[in-house]
Amino acid sequence: MKLKMMYSFLNSDINIIEKELEETIQPESLLLKQASMHTLQAGGKRIRPVFVLLAGKFGDYDIHVLKNVAVALELIHMASLVHDDVIDDADLRRGQPTVKSKWDNKIAMYTGDFVFALALELMTNIKRPEAHKILANTIVEVTLGEIQQIKDKYRFKQNLRDYLRRIKRKTALLIAVSCQLGAVAAGVEEKYHKKLFRFGYYVGMSYQIIDDILDFTSTEKELGKPAGSDLLQGNITAPALFAMDDPHTLCEIEKVHENIGPEEIGRIISLIKQSGAIEKSFALSDHYLDKALTVLEELPENKAKRTLRDIAKYIGRRKF
Amino acid sequence: MKLKMMYSFLNSDINIIEKELEETIQPESLLLKQASMHTLQAGGKRIRPVFVLLAGKFGDYDIHVLKNVAVALELIHMASLVHDDVIDDADLRRGQPTVKSKWDNKIAMYTGDFVFALALELMTNIKRPEAHKILANTIVEVTLGEIQQIKDKYRFKQNLRDYLRRIKRKTALLIAVSCQLGAVAAGVEEKYHKKLFRFGYYVGMSYQIIDDILDFTSTEKELGKPAGSDLLQGNITAPALFAMDDPHTLCEIEKVHENIGPEEIGRIISLIKQSGAIEKSFALSDHYLDKALTVLEELPENKAKRTLRDIAKYIGRRKF
Repeated sequence: MKLKMMYSFLNSDINIIEKELEETIQPESLLLKQASMHTLQAGGKRIRPVFVLLAGKFGDYDIHVLKNVAVALELIHMASLVHDDVIDDADLRRGQPTVKSKWDNKIAMYTGDFVFALALELMTNIKRPEAHKILANTIVEVTLGEIQQIKDKYRFKQNLRDYLRRIKRKTALLIAVSCQLGAVAAGVEEKYHKKLFRFGYYVGMSYQIIDDILDFTSTEKELGKPAGSDLLQGNITAPALFAMDDPHTLCEIEKVHENIGPEEIGRIISLIKQSGAIEKSFALSDHYLDKALTVLEELPENKAKRTLRDIAKYIGRRKF
Repeated sequence: MKLKMMYSFLNSDINIIEKELEETIQPESLLLKQASMHTLQAGGKRIRPVFVLLAGKFGDYDIHVLKNVAVALELIHMASLVHDDVIDDADLRRGQPTVKSKWDNKIAMYTGDFVFALALELMTNIKRPEAHKILANTIVEVTLGEIQQIKDKYRFKQNLRDYLRRIKRKTALLIAVSCQLGAVAAGVEEKYHKKLFRFGYYVGMSYQIIDDILDFTSTEKELGKPAGSDLLQGNITAPALFAMDDPHTLCEIEKVHENIGPEEIGRIISLIKQSGAIEKSFALSDHYLDKALTVLEELPENKAKRTLRDIAKYIGRRKF
């Protein structure tokens, strides 16, 4: 089943969110509008808005309240991608040229700032102070994670804990907070807030680990960017870390640097794939997926819960 | 009289703010801490915190509420400077190397993001929803202004209105909002909010015009960066705009480009200084200063008001 089919009962509300996303990004500056729309239209799975809405279903679901949170979180995600592409010197994302490659780093920086500011503006429609505290704390963590990611580049002496902390901040926290803020905004019973947060956190971890596996195992066509980009950019992810358990592979991986040739990097990627590291990474992702499904059991049974379960399984087991 | 002497009765509260600024910037990342502290210690006049406190004096002044707004606004100002230096390729600010020159553009981008996130975290201590709306709207405007500034670089076919709109967003709005948010946070009578906003706005305009004049008239030692930097970087400010009224000077100014030599730019700066443009720019600054002093008259008489008046005059007439 395709992801979108899983939440087809939310279709009319997802359309409201898509429309709101487009309408929000209507600045007077044509350049800024083009750069932001470009990011918006590059698509993505809209996982964060969907989680906001599904979490809201456990409380007083009102799309006209929840849409503010849903759109804000998607915009924050977009803004972080735009800044991320500056860090990674990435030219392609989802098969589309990035803002920084289509324009330049400066435009990318301010497009990110602007999109982020729009998100804050939307969030001011949420009257619960708790929501703002949660979001602000998360953003501090996310920016700390981004700095850490720069520092950890090409640093081969790191362990799985470094990696897990990085992907927590880079991905899992914002997905966790999507669930949590959906709950807060819909006035869901407080005892469920933390459970929804944890569900999102575990799904986010599983999601990012799979993403990092696919960077090794998928083709350039499937990824919308060259395979092995992570390692080439010095981002040490789960497959590389597991492969480094073997001293010979470690020695080879340590040879990676910014200007390594395509043949050489291809050879190292093959080594990693043959080392059993991909399987170990899938097992790590499964570990988080199981935790997500377990915490989900503690929530009341309803359609939203069943959908969250389907999405978690889809995300944790996707092969592209 | 020195600026700091004017608000010496606030000294103990200013110290609380300085301490809070330092304590806020204590991330676990040493790199980030260094980069942010570096920006913090480069100093600056702390005009925004002082305005927050003085505006608060018209209501229920509580330093432990107001410090959140004061520190948040100074941090937002700092964050915008860090991003600004990326745009301007600036190597020096206030005589110190900029974050982007001491580290690089990427670190500067995330230092800015991080410092900004800290500001949001502090602002969540303010329970008045109105404050958050005002701040979010302002930040959207500021980011739009930053994009506009990039677009307007080396664009010689622009007029004074373009310039005024740019400095409004770049400088005046955040100073205006410092006054306004100080009033909101201290529960000042609502009829005074807009007046305090307008006072800050006019002072901010005057301040930035003087800043732009000094970039032409001061020495490198006084500025802490090379004189004429603005024009060299393609930022067309009031003196250049007034000078361009003369067709010959216009023709010379239009020759400015990124790689112009020091002699050539020195010659053009001299032309601008001889054209009467500096005097016209001072008159423009005075125009805003007068407006600031006029709107101030509509506020109740007290020590804070007298101090605001002194600061406005100081700012609007400073020669370095």
